[in-house]
Amino acid sequence: MDQSKENQPAAPEGATQAPSDYFTGITWVKTLVPANDQTDCVVSDVTFEAGARNNWHTHPNGQILVVTAGTGYYQEQGRPIQLLRVGEAVNIAPGLVHWHGATPDSRFTHIAINPNASKGGAVNWLQAVTDEEYHSYQG
Amino acid sequence: MDQSKENQPAAPEGATQAPSDYFTGITWVKTLVPANDQTDCVVSDVTFEAGARNNWHTHPNGQILVVTAGTGYYQEQGRPIQLLRVGEAVNIAPGLVHWHGATPDSRFTHIAINPNASKGGAVNWLQAVTDEEYHSYQG
Repeated sequence: MDQSKENQPAAPEGATQAPSDYFTGITWVKTLVPANDQTDCVVSDVTFEAGARNNWHTHPNGQILVVTAGTGYYQEQGRPIQLLRVGEAVNIAPGLVHWHGATPDSRFTHIAINPNASKGGAVNWLQAVTDEEYHSYQG
Repeated sequence: MDQSKENQPAAPEGATQAPSDYFTGITWVKTLVPANDQTDCVVSDVTFEAGARNNWHTHPNGQILVVTAGTGYYQEQGRPIQLLRVGEAVNIAPGLVHWHGATPDSRFTHIAINPNASKGGAVNWLQAVTDEEYHSYQG
């Protein structure tokens, strides 16, 4: 993939690019609430450029997504892709294999809430989402 | 206050009005993630009409706010009012006395994240924020 600065979309303010080992396409991550002992929740703002998605993965302590911009995909292993719209939330059980990302034509932003951060092991990364899997949305 | 339907702003989709016992002005609350044993976090979408705010209060388990629209106020007891803008977050320690709401001229929306919901006692309400306190923002 050509990631020269000329072709790369502008990062949201304060965000850094997510690691290509675990993301297909360009995704930006900004930490809103770092690790802390007051609420023990880590909160991040995640923006996927159109077509971008993360690998299949699990969260040992679960995760909540809240959509704030654009339209995205969310898929649990063995189930069809679900469309995610602004204002919708997903409550992801500990250990559930899933992925999320933008639709092919829309930049997509969600807040990601990781509870019980002090327990460690926020995410376990698995294999990449193939193009066939990504394009399986039935509408 | 005149709360006839003619003068009342339209509710955001799926939201209900927050109780006037604990809120000054009109505020809307929509539950995004109800009580659950997967993440043990309750997440709500809260919209304050311009001038609206909640009472002084504490959260025994803490709370996180993430601003998604408009401009708001946040004040901790004994400190000046802070302005909150879209994309900003506040991590509120358990037991901290504080309030939040819209500015006088802007509708304001934040997500509210309540961790460790199964511990109970999500909020302890205190006295209303007076007009003098509300209008003490120094800019």
